[in-house]
This record gives sequence, structure tokens and C-alpha cells, in this order.
Amino acid sequence: MPQDTNRHPLPADFRWPDGIRAAALFSFDLDAEAVMLGDHPETGRYLDVIAHQRYGPRVAVPRILRMLDRLDLRTTFFVPGWVAETWPDVARSVRDAGHEVGHHGYLHESVRGVDEETEVGYLRRGLAALNEVLGIRPVGYRPPSWDINYRTPGLLAREGFRYDSAMMDSDHPYRLATSPEPGAPTLIELPVHWSLDDWNRYNYVPGYTGNSPVGRPSEVCAAWAEELDAIVEVGGLFSLTMHPFVSGRPARAAALERLIERAAAIDGLWLATGEELASWVETLDLPPVLHEPPVIRP
Amino acid sequence: MPQDTNRHPLPADFRWPDGIRAAALFSFDLDAEAVMLGDHPETGRYLDVIAHQRYGPRVAVPRILRMLDRLDLRTTFFVPGWVAETWPDVARSVRDAGHEVGHHGYLHESVRGVDEETEVGYLRRGLAALNEVLGIRPVGYRPPSWDINYRTPGLLAREGFRYDSAMMDSDHPYRLATSPEPGAPTLIELPVHWSLDDWNRYNYVPGYTGNSPVGRPSEVCAAWAEELDAIVEVGGLFSLTMHPFVSGRPARAAALERLIERAAAIDGLWLATGEELASWVETLDLPPVLHEPPVIRP
Amino acid sequence: MPQDTNRHPLPADFRWPDGIRAAALFSFDLDAEAVMLGDHPETGRYLDVIAHQRYGPRVAVPRILRMLDRLDLRTTFFVPGWVAETWPDVARSVRDAGHEVGHHGYLHESVRGVDEETEVGYLRRGLAALNEVLGIRPVGYRPPSWDINYRTPGLLAREGFRYDSAMMDSDHPYRLATSPEPGAPTLIELPVHWSLDDWNRYNYVPGYTGNSPVGRPSEVCAAWAEELDAIVEVGGLFSLTMHPFVSGRPARAAALERLIERAAAIDGLWLATGEELASWVETLDLPPVLHEPPVIRP
Amino acid sequence: MPQDTNRHPLPADFRWPDGIRAAALFSFDLDAEAVMLGDHPETGRYLDVIAHQRYGPRVAVPRILRMLDRLDLRTTFFVPGWVAETWPDVARSVRDAGHEVGHHGYLHESVRGVDEETEVGYLRRGLAALNEVLGIRPVGYRPPSWDINYRTPGLLAREGFRYDSAMMDSDHPYRLATSPEPGAPTLIELPVHWSLDDWNRYNYVPGYTGNSPVGRPSEVCAAWAEELDAIVEVGGLFSLTMHPFVSGRPARAAALERLIERAAAIDGLWLATGEELASWVETLDLPPVLHEPPVIRP
Repeated sequence: MPQDTNRHPLPADFRWPDGIRAAALFSFDLDAEAVMLGDHPETGRYLDVIAHQRYGPRVAVPRILRMLDRLDLRTTFFVPGWVAETWPDVARSVRDAGHEVGHHGYLHESVRGVDEETEVGYLRRGLAALNEVLGIRPVGYRPPSWDINYRTPGLLAREGFRYDSAMMDSDHPYRLATSPEPGAPTLIELPVHWSLDDWNRYNYVPGYTGNSPVGRPSEVCAAWAEELDAIVEVGGLFSLTMHPFVSGRPARAAALERLIERAAAIDGLWLATGEELASWVETLDLPPVLHEPPVIRP
Repeated sequence: MPQDTNRHPLPADFRWPDGIRAAALFSFDLDAEAVMLGDHPETGRYLDVIAHQRYGPRVAVPRILRMLDRLDLRTTFFVPGWVAETWPDVARSVRDAGHEVGHHGYLHESVRGVDEETEVGYLRRGLAALNEVLGIRPVGYRPPSWDINYRTPGLLAREGFRYDSAMMDSDHPYRLATSPEPGAPTLIELPVHWSLDDWNRYNYVPGYTGNSPVGRPSEVCAAWAEELDAIVEVGGLFSLTMHPFVSGRPARAAALERLIERAAAIDGLWLATGEELASWVETLDLPPVLHEPPVIRP
Repeated sequence: MPQDTNRHPLPADFRWPDGIRAAALFSFDLDAEAVMLGDHPETGRYLDVIAHQRYGPRVAVPRILRMLDRLDLRTTFFVPGWVAETWPDVARSVRDAGHEVGHHGYLHESVRGVDEETEVGYLRRGLAALNEVLGIRPVGYRPPSWDINYRTPGLLAREGFRYDSAMMDSDHPYRLATSPEPGAPTLIELPVHWSLDDWNRYNYVPGYTGNSPVGRPSEVCAAWAEELDAIVEVGGLFSLTMHPFVSGRPARAAALERLIERAAAIDGLWLATGEELASWVETLDLPPVLHEPPVIRP
Repeated sequence: MPQDTNRHPLPADFRWPDGIRAAALFSFDLDAEAVMLGDHPETGRYLDVIAHQRYGPRVAVPRILRMLDRLDLRTTFFVPGWVAETWPDVARSVRDAGHEVGHHGYLHESVRGVDEETEVGYLRRGLAALNEVLGIRPVGYRPPSWDINYRTPGLLAREGFRYDSAMMDSDHPYRLATSPEPGAPTLIELPVHWSLDDWNRYNYVPGYTGNSPVGRPSEVCAAWAEELDAIVEVGGLFSLTMHPFVSGRPARAAALERLIERAAAIDGLWLATGEELASWVETLDLPPVLHEPPVIRP
């Protein structure tokens, strides 16, 4: 059944490969301790918080790799440089299982309010770490906490990235401008949304994060399945962002496995890595979208 | 089946047109970036937040207009003046599809604690923008965040508005006094309630808004359907307030479409625009309700 | 079926009247504007907040009175003195429908940290208002927000109250000591709990109250029905605290009516007013419970 | 059916006793007033808060003991020293029913940021209280609020503890190192997780704790049952942490009893006390896990 493009027109010039009507990216942000240390350095002194985060590399990543292997799914892990340095065997196990590794900051730093030099420093330090530990140069970038500045796309292009995954303004991948200049370099944007993140659904660290009740895994994955069906219907990208320390717990991983099986059974749905998606979208002649700050006249 | 007025008496002198036992207003507040910029100007520098808001004009409004066209429903969009200026084609597409455009502030400003001159300034700047971009003079006003002062009804009447939609003290439209003077101008009030808003159910911008879990669309719309049935039972106005950037995501829009179809199938339920409702209520001889501040004696 | 007292022994010396195995008090706190004004006086200037609260006396109380009449249920409304003064016809309609009126502060003041004279002042001002508007002397007291001091039981006894409804330390009514002296006056305590309050389930006033999602009425009442069944099982008091402005909305009232019908159909469940419950418990020879502050030795 | 160790390999060298494939620890933290007084000493002056906490020793512990007796289950109660001193009969009733008593601080103190001497003081004062009131020397320790320092395992070993229950980095018990020195003493760790705690699901004390809606007991226990099934599947430890004042309310206790019955019926699931679990794990030759602070190079 082709996607009903009268009801749900695709963005101008966008199309999927032949036989494909929608795509799904089941990505993992391998944050481990970094997501707490970046924003709240004092948590490094709290063993309870640190142990909570270390569940990711210690238990969850191996479980998720086994699961992805059973599902025969190659996907994308976004890995902060510090995590690669701190958990090199874990990072290598991800790479060696054939998954794409993307950039996710060095210590999961927010770029809100930082100057350009600092922001570039985070990018380069993350790149150096991934190169040193994994011998790779990532082509994809997902900003820690999805915090992004107007200058960021330009910085990413300068550092050789091919895609970004941070924006919540589209159901479809698009071409991301880095400047208003004609011919300026572009990136591919793989959009995301808070409704497709495991953080709001499950995560709970009193005093730090989690203002929602801890979700029941079968209900969380049923909600995501509903989002998936609707995104397939509009021919978009179902981009699910998970964290091993959050989604790798037994009942959550079990529910997730059923969700991925369900997705894999949907006719015409392409389960892809970020790089595969970006490579396809690069072949399309899409008008670049330039993000500029809102203008408020006094 | 007529509404059971023994069990649920209508307010004095209130009645619906012949054959009608209740009404539904499926309205949209086209807030886009303005709802963040008005309260939190620093978010203009955060591309992630701004992109989140731009989903509304970029993706959600076109989707919602297509949906409303399929449903053959004309409704009301409340549009901040700044949004009309910033997204003129989007605002015009709403108008050109036959929907009513109402006033929703200029930059979605709260009027809490502002002086009268400032408040009038917001009203006039919004009016000027809607006139310039759309060539219209709105008859309806919905206060940003539903914040309203005791003086506001008088200001609205002076600026030529015919109805307001902000109060949570009624299940039925009523006549809104602007002063205790006999013969003073009146408006029509189309009441609202937080249980019939998509904000608490879905919206989530960490650090800014959303302290609830992200709702599952089928469950949110089932809850609204329950509210709808009960409001039909009491012969009231089901006044649902939505935001394109919130409710226009694929699964939410799909669930909303089913909810509107359900409403359209209810015998004797009138799906109307704000202006249509106000026009009807203006024909009734309703006693004006004057809102005065509570008095606390020391 | 008698209550299984092997499995669920009643407190020492406690019993229900013959044929009764548990009781239910469906009480209402008629807070109206007072619950906001007491804690947050600035909200008096915000018409939106004030209108939200006025839904109680304007719409919800009449609806609830009609419902209770259909159900043939007499219950207890706890009314702040200021609310009686501000909405005298509403307060009288409650009294005239045969419901008990209890004391609920004057302006819904918290007694946390106030001195004894101030606390007595709140009590007396509330008594004076209920006397002047309703010509009654209440026998029951429910502290605003359930805030209570160790001295409060003594103050209540001195002012002639017979029961209090504030404590969360029991499933059963008990005798409340006012002092360690033998022969000191006692009150009856009708305990409550946050799980049996409509506030956490439904209420939402951004910036002021409500950190939970707005509940779906049928689910809220299903949760309360589950609590009811379990309390019947242990032979206790199901003491549900509601607020007209919260629970009187159409779908909530409809779900509540079904819950009360369900309760009324439970064999051996006594639906009573606070005063009826207190009168029964006064006939029992229960050991008074004296509340003293916790002692922490350095 | 043996646990599927291809799909879910056990940690290196870990195994359960013959015939066992997973374990469950249904533990209770008997916090009573201490959990509020430790963090918020001013609550000692608020009778409403204190009464809320006293539901634990007054009503919930007897109910839970009767329930555990019906279920023929011996389990572990972690008891702050102050609670044992303040409620000696309650603490003795727990011991006399054959349950293990573990250490849970003196006044439920957080150890975040305290110096070693202070932390040792909390441990010793708790030990002294349990010895004086109960004549026992606990072998297990659960940190109040699960707050733990890197030095804590060493302190615990020095004070003669055999196990700790605080960490969220494992699905299985493990050996906990106290120092990098070979031959240094070790403890057994019985891990926990916030998803298996009744606090986030049910607890609500406005202004102090509870930012989630009050859960419906049958739904909470259904969520826990789902976690249980998944943990059995991976051959881990289902470690449920409850508080009498929270989980001992009628509907919650009823749902909990059904959950424990369900667990007891799972073939190969061992319902054990903390000490029984630790004793088993001590027999295994597990590599000690040393927790060290994260290192961040500038």
C-alpha cells in the first residue's frame, strides 16, 4: 500500500527510495555518567547517582547489542567522547557489532550560552576521543540534550559532519543550510521529538531529573507504537531516542524488542542507521532550510 | 433526544438554536515561537526551542488545514500579531481556508501586573498586525495563557471585540459585563478549561514547560471524548483549545481527527466557530455577568 | 457478609453499628476563591484564576446539590467563613438541602508557623461568619489544606467542636486527645488521605497548583472505587475529599455520581455525614490518642 | 523451564542455587517520621505531616505483618535506629515475626557531602539503637534515600556488615569491593532501582515530596508484575523497596498481596530475605566490583 500522498503530502521534492514509504531510526545515546556530570558535576561524588548511570555500559549495552543482533538490526549509537575514553571496551563492542557511532559531545555539554570557541572545543575533543578509542570519524552529530545554537550547523559542516539530529520542526529529514550564502555547505537534518525519547517516560533521579511517574514498559511502547503507525501514515521518519541506562532495564528492553519486531514487520518501513538515512537524503535535491533567530521589533 | 433539563437545567434565559442541544468549538491558538518568546525571551537564542515551536507553522498548520477540510469544519484560529507578521503565508492560508481568525495578543504577552496603557498597547499592536497581514478586524479575543484582568472586558469592548474566550467559571457561553453601569457595552464569553487544553496533556520543553508525562494520543482523545459526552449531557459548550505545534504531530492529529468525527456524529451537537457561537448568544437576552475582584476585609 | 476481622482486625474497642461493616463520607470543601487567596493573595488580581475558582459556587455547587438530591444522600460541606460571607445564597442552599456544614477556616488559612492567638482568630472568625450567614454552629472542623498543629485539637475542643477531619494515621475514626491530662476533653477524628482527594487527580492552575496530569474522570473514579473496596474490606472509613470547583465539572460529576451509586449498593456500607459518624464514635469507649511532637535527642 | 542463558547470560561466575532461576526480595524501609525529619526537620512541628508518617507504625506494619504471615513469607525490614527507639514495640513485632532487620541510618540521614566521622556516627548510632531495642546486630545496610559515598562500602565492612542494598548498576547481586587492595574485605551488593520503589508511584506530601500523580494500586502492581516477569527472564533479582506508610494502605496492601502471591507461584523464583541472598552470593567466587569516582581531565 503506497503512502496516501493526497492526504499526507510529502515535503516538496522529498521522496523515499522505491518501495519505501517511511523510515525508522532506533538510536541510542550512550550517555552513561556524562549526562549527569556535564550538567551537574557534583554528582560525580554521589556513588548512588554514578552507579545508576553505569548500568548503561555495564549491563544495558551488552543486552541491547544482543537484542539488536537477534533482530538483525544495525543502528546508530551517539557516544560522548568522555564515555568512549572511560568505557573503551563498551564503545568498541558497539562499533564491532557493526553499528554506526555518532558524535554526542565530549562530556555531554550543553552549548546554551557558550561562545563559539568553547563550542568548537567540545566538538573537537569529542572527535579526538572517538578517533583515539575507536579509530573512527563520525559523520553524524546529535547535540547533548538536543541543545543547539544557530551557529552550530556551520560548525558541524566545517568539522566534516554530514548530518545532525536535533530539530523538532519536521516529520521528515531535510537539508540544513549553514548560511544564507548560495553554495554554502549543507547538512542533512534527521529530526527528533520529545514524545519519542525514553527520558520523559522512564527516567527518575530525585533532585536532578524526572518529573513524571516511572512509565510501565508495555504502555510506553504501546504509545510509541501509536506514534510509529501515525508517522508511517504520513511517510515520515520515526526517530526514537533511547539511552542504554534508561531503556536497557529488563522489562523496558523486552518491550522495546517487541516494538522493533513490530516495526520490522511493517511493509515499506525502512529501519536504517542515521548515516544510511543521510546518504539517501543527500541524493535528493532539497531546498536547504536556514534557521535564523526570531526577530522582535521593539 | 432533547437535553434533560430537569437533571441539567440550563442557565437562566440560555438556550441553543432549535434542534441543537450543545455546541463544540475546536479552536487552535497559533502560537508558534511567540508563546516562548513572550514569557522567556532568552529562548530566541536556543535554536532547539525555536525549531520545536516552528513545527506549528511549518508542518502542523498545513496538516490541520487539510484535516479540517476533509472534515468540512470551519473553526477559529487565535493568532498573535507577531506570528501573523512572521508567518504571513501561514496566517493567510488559515484565513483563505475559511476559518475565523481571532486576536491572541501581539507576542503572546501575559497581562498580569501590567498597566492599562501597556495592555491596550498589546491589543492594538495585535490588531494592527492582523489588519496589515490579513486585512481583517477580529471580533474574538483569547488572552495569551488565558491571563486576564478585571479591566480587560472593558478594553475589549472599546476596541470593538464582540467576544472573549478566557473564563473557567461556566459550562455555557454568557454575556460579559464591562462595567456595573446599566447600558454599558457587553461582550459574549465563550468559556474554556484546562482539562480541555492540549498543553497539560502533551507539551514538554525541559526547563520551561511541561511537568506532566507526554500523553498517548488515543488516551488523551479518549479523555476529551469523555468530557465531550458529559458536556453534551449538560447542554454546554465543549471548548477545546489546541496549539498546532502541540496537537499537529502525526499521532495527535490522527487521534484528533477521530475525535472530531465522533463529535460531528453526535445528534444535536453544533460544531461552530467562535463568531458563530457569539452571534447566537448575542440574540439571547442574558443578564450580563460582571467580574469584580474578591473583597477581603481585614 | 460480615467483615473478616481475623484478616483485618478492627482497632481495639472500635465497632460499627449493627449491620454496618464500613462507612463512607463523601465530603466537599467549598473553597471557591478562598483556597487561592489564603495562600496567594496576589491571585485576587488575576481574573482568570478567580473565575476558575468561582466555577464552584456558580455552577458546581448547584450541580452537586441536584446530584446529591437524586442520590438521596446527605453529606458534609466544609465551608470557609469568607466563602459563606461572599456567597451567602450558595452557602444557604447547601444548608437548606439538609447537608451538614463544617468549619474550614476563614480565608482557608494555613496554620503552619502561626501563633496560638492567630490560630484562634481564624477559628473564631470562621465561626462568626457561619453563624451570621447560616445561623449555625458547626460541630466539625476540617483544617484548610489539612495543616494542623499539636495545639489545634485543644483549641477545637475549647471552641466546642466535636470532631476534626485532618489526620492521615488511621483507616478508622478514633478518639482524639487534647491533652495528656486524664479527663481532658476529647474530640472524634475522621481521618483522610491524599489518595482520596480530588486535588492531586484533577486540579491544575499553572504557576500555583497541580504538578500532575489532569486525570480522566472515569479513571479517577475507578481508582477511588478500588480504594473504596479495599477500605470496606478492612472495615474502615472511606473519606473522600472533594472541591466543587474541581469535581463539579460535567464529566467529573458524572463519574462521581456513578461512584456514589456504586457505594450505595455495597451491602453494609454506611454513607454518612461527618456529624453522624462522630456521634456514633462518641458512643464507643475508645482510648484517646494524644499526638505529641517527635523527640530527637542530639 | 531453565533460564535462557544464551539470550540472557548471567554475569561471569554468577549462578543461583540449584533449581532456582531468579530471586525476589520484597523489602520494607520502616521509615515512619524519620524520612521527613532527617531531610526536613521543621516537619516535626507539622502534626499533619507527622500523622501521615505515623500511619506506618500504627496501622501499616501490623497489616503487613499479618499479610506476610498469611503468605508465609519472611523478608527484610530496614529500620532507622530512631524509629526503633521511638516505636520499640513495632520494631520488636517485626523481629518477633521472624523477619530480618537491617540498618537504615539513625534518623534517615543523607550522607551526601558529610565527612567520614559524621557518616560513621550515623552508622554507629543506628547500630546502637538496634542493639538496645532489638538486641540484634544487623548484617545488611540500606542507605537512607539510597545515598551512598565511595567510602561507604569500606565503612560498612569495618562495622561488620555483610551486605549493602543501594546500587542501580546491576540486575544481579554482586561482590562489592571496599578497596583496590587485593584481599581487602568485600560485601555483597543487592541492587535496587527507582522503578521498583513505591515512592515515585504513590507518595505525595505537598511541598515536600511527590511530583507524580497518586498511582492506582492495581496499576502499580501490574507494572511491578511486568518488571518481575522480565527480571525472572534475565535470571536477576527483583528487589522491591516499599515503605509501610506508603504501601500499607488498604488498596495498596491488597494489590501487593496479589503481587506476592503471583511471585510465589512462579516456578524457580526464590523469595528470600536480604541475608539469605547475601549468604548464597558469598559462596560464589565473584570478582569484586570497585566503585571509583569518574575521572574528568581538564
